Amino acid sequence: MGDPGEVVEAIRNLRVRGAPAIGVAGAYALVLAAGIGGAAGVRETAPGVAAARPTAVNLRWAVERMLHRLDGLGATESREEVEIALLEEAEAIQREDEEACRAIGERGAALLGNPCTLLTHCNAGALATAGSGTALGIVYTAVDAGKRVRVYADETRPLLQGARLTAWELHRAGVPVTVIADSVAGSVLASGDVDAVIVGADRIAANGDAANKIGTYPLAVLASRHEVPFYVAAPLSTFDPTCACGNDIPIEERSPAELSNPFGVNVVPEGVSVYNPAFDVTPAALVTAWICETGVIRSPDSASIAAHLESGPLQPS
Amino acid sequence: MGDPGEVVEAIRNLRVRGAPAIGVAGAYALVLAAGIGGAAGVRETAPGVAAARPTAVNLRWAVERMLHRLDGLGATESREEVEIALLEEAEAIQREDEEACRAIGERGAALLGNPCTLLTHCNAGALATAGSGTALGIVYTAVDAGKRVRVYADETRPLLQGARLTAWELHRAGVPVTVIADSVAGSVLASGDVDAVIVGADRIAANGDAANKIGTYPLAVLASRHEVPFYVAAPLSTFDPTCACGNDIPIEERSPAELSNPFGVNVVPEGVSVYNPAFDVTPAALVTAWICETGVIRSPDSASIAAHLESGPLQPS
Repeated sequence: MGDPGEVVEAIRNLRVRGAPAIGVAGAYALVLAAGIGGAAGVRETAPGVAAARPTAVNLRWAVERMLHRLDGLGATESREEVEIALLEEAEAIQREDEEACRAIGERGAALLGNPCTLLTHCNAGALATAGSGTALGIVYTAVDAGKRVRVYADETRPLLQGARLTAWELHRAGVPVTVIADSVAGSVLASGDVDAVIVGADRIAANGDAANKIGTYPLAVLASRHEVPFYVAAPLSTFDPTCACGNDIPIEERSPAELSNPFGVNVVPEGVSVYNPAFDVTPAALVTAWICETGVIRSPDSASIAAHLESGPLQPS
Repeated sequence: MGDPGEVVEAIRNLRVRGAPAIGVAGAYALVLAAGIGGAAGVRETAPGVAAARPTAVNLRWAVERMLHRLDGLGATESREEVEIALLEEAEAIQREDEEACRAIGERGAALLGNPCTLLTHCNAGALATAGSGTALGIVYTAVDAGKRVRVYADETRPLLQGARLTAWELHRAGVPVTVIADSVAGSVLASGDVDAVIVGADRIAANGDAANKIGTYPLAVLASRHEVPFYVAAPLSTFDPTCACGNDIPIEERSPAELSNPFGVNVVPEGVSVYNPAFDVTPAALVTAWICETGVIRSPDSASIAAHLESGPLQPS
């Protein structure tokens, strides 16, 4: 891709998806903008990149970080110099996300027993980040450490990221994975066969409420009922201190056709309405712990999250 | 269809589905068996009909009732006399199911406010019974009584009975219906936009635990969390006094291809396992009331359910 508009389209159409991955892609979109239009091009392009998808805060975070880097440059800097500086920054964002995945993987793997059966939703793996993934990074790290891990993967309607991406990633890595309909998670949790639920996040509010792929909230409610630990694995770039709580997180509503017209087949009668929110919010009280690159946060309040964020290396200053 | 084997196949392949409807279809399969092989043909055919699907007890109940009628006939009865008697019995089962739907509709509609927004799962409508349906019978009756009813219909993976059948039925009847992915129910219930959840049942144990389409149990858990009434609408023929509790109800596991190969498209990578149970069990404690043709049973114990069943007109003596 040579045009930032193409990156925005790729993010909108989910050819790039996963909160950390779209942050990284958004940063590179601004490198492309710098190459074409220098500092002015970056400033002009930034709002459209930040708004390509509304829920995952990593995108806005990455754009703000790129603009912060731009602000630090002298006004006399040439187009080439701007491009080089922003490329450096985008590469740093990418490297830091890889490192965050590695650290999240280690911190999360330490929480798991051996053997261990996990349940996950959507895809929070290598296909969603610059590294090995958040939720799946934990799986890979645990397996590398010699733990025997099995995974139930919710198929994740409407776009089937669990069936298509998570199952593909895990199977390729030799991790036993069983795909279930989203609605089967209740039975599987009730059966006692799951030791922990691990999901990623698209935005975590200051109080710990976490927005993630639609269907995460019901999983958290079911895990709580069956006393199964419910972990949210996410880099610090997913925390949004400007959202006091989950109610402040904008929830993207996507095209009804994602639900009503899978694979070109109409499955909803003509004239019937369809409601297709892409995310839901899990209240902090249902989360056993947030697994971040800098630590495992248990039962936080806003103050402890704020302190944790301040200690983190990844926030733009 | 002229052959009971064809009816059994139609039940297995879900061309006839819905617990009450497969009971009625099973009864007519034995009428066909009587026409071909008389009493001996009926006795030979009955076990295969009863076993066509394992979870909905209405099928076994209807077969037992037909055999009971057969037992009451003289040994000298001709093939034609057996056929006529069994046709009478099958027609009675069908008529009684129509009547049960009507009564369930009235009892359930009386519980609803005006206006009223409902959430339902799978299809418990005219396409699942001999009458207007159980859960949807309540909707039709409420609308006929002048109540303004809106319905959220879970699409109901893997076979999409909610998107395809419930949405079709309700839209055709002029009832506003919105299809959602099964995993959206949590958000919709959390939003406060749902006044009651109403589902059907495939088998209700003596203690009130109810087996219904996979995904019903998570809905009940979510409804309980958000203090939304959760109603199970089912005729007495759905109660199975021989199952003490939900653990005794056999749960049908269906072909992985239902999940992994929708519309001929592989959505699960080759070699990945799939778990596809067709039903789950909702504990009695999560059910606000069971709406039956003979009454509304609230917070029952085994004794009150037994008393209720004894008072019913539909059990074989």
